[in-house]
Amino acid sequence: MAVVMSTLCCCGNKQTNQYDNMCEKLPMSDDGIVRLSKIKVNPDYLDEYMKYAMEVGTVSLQTEPGVLTMYAVADKEDPSNITILETYANQEAYKQHIASDHFQKYKQGTLHMVDSLILDDVTPLNPKNKLINYIE
Amino acid sequence: MAVVMSTLCCCGNKQTNQYDNMCEKLPMSDDGIVRLSKIKVNPDYLDEYMKYAMEVGTVSLQTEPGVLTMYAVADKEDPSNITILETYANQEAYKQHIASDHFQKYKQGTLHMVDSLILDDVTPLNPKNKLINYIE
Repeated sequence: MAVVMSTLCCCGNKQTNQYDNMCEKLPMSDDGIVRLSKIKVNPDYLDEYMKYAMEVGTVSLQTEPGVLTMYAVADKEDPSNITILETYANQEAYKQHIASDHFQKYKQGTLHMVDSLILDDVTPLNPKNKLINYIE
Repeated sequence: MAVVMSTLCCCGNKQTNQYDNMCEKLPMSDDGIVRLSKIKVNPDYLDEYMKYAMEVGTVSLQTEPGVLTMYAVADKEDPSNITILETYANQEAYKQHIASDHFQKYKQGTLHMVDSLILDDVTPLNPKNKLINYIE
């Protein structure tokens, strides 16, 4: 299975992850999305927010073929500043993601915890610079 | 080789990339660095800056065992806002990186192009959420 993942993902076809907990992934399309989501969390809810964010990130990566990256980090100086590198294979994959039960559980469950949300769509500088994102 | 990359990188040992243009990578250590470098480029120099940034990112990923990710993106709304996800396997790997000829060529060559630079060290929310970064 590892061969399939590494061979196919790099030539733009579906990749199959070696982990049983990861679904097959779609190739990146011309209408794909690369985004930095910047979230300012109310510090009073930070621990609770982290649980929601970890769950939605894990389930999305493991189960959604069109969610190619969902990599969330917290600033060391102020962990209430969260940044998520999100990559969707195409527009339809993004629509399916935000309509999913796990995303809606996160979105509705954390509305009162989020002070601000900025969605920065971005362009990779080097089209040949590639990421594979998975849950170990 | 693909098997080696996918098998070993996921258990924290050295990974060997299937591409001849990629060096072996070190495992992430407890003193590793995950960073979001946020660079505001003088728009007058943006095209020239991009060439320097692409070169240093490519050479660093391809040749430095301790540079685990070097993924640069530009805001679609304002491409002069650059963010780079940088991951170093350990502190020594970072010291070697900033001392390298290719980094010094970038640093000295772009000093007059950079209006501001913020180095945000971050902590991944989920330790099991992993990235593999390579040049296709």
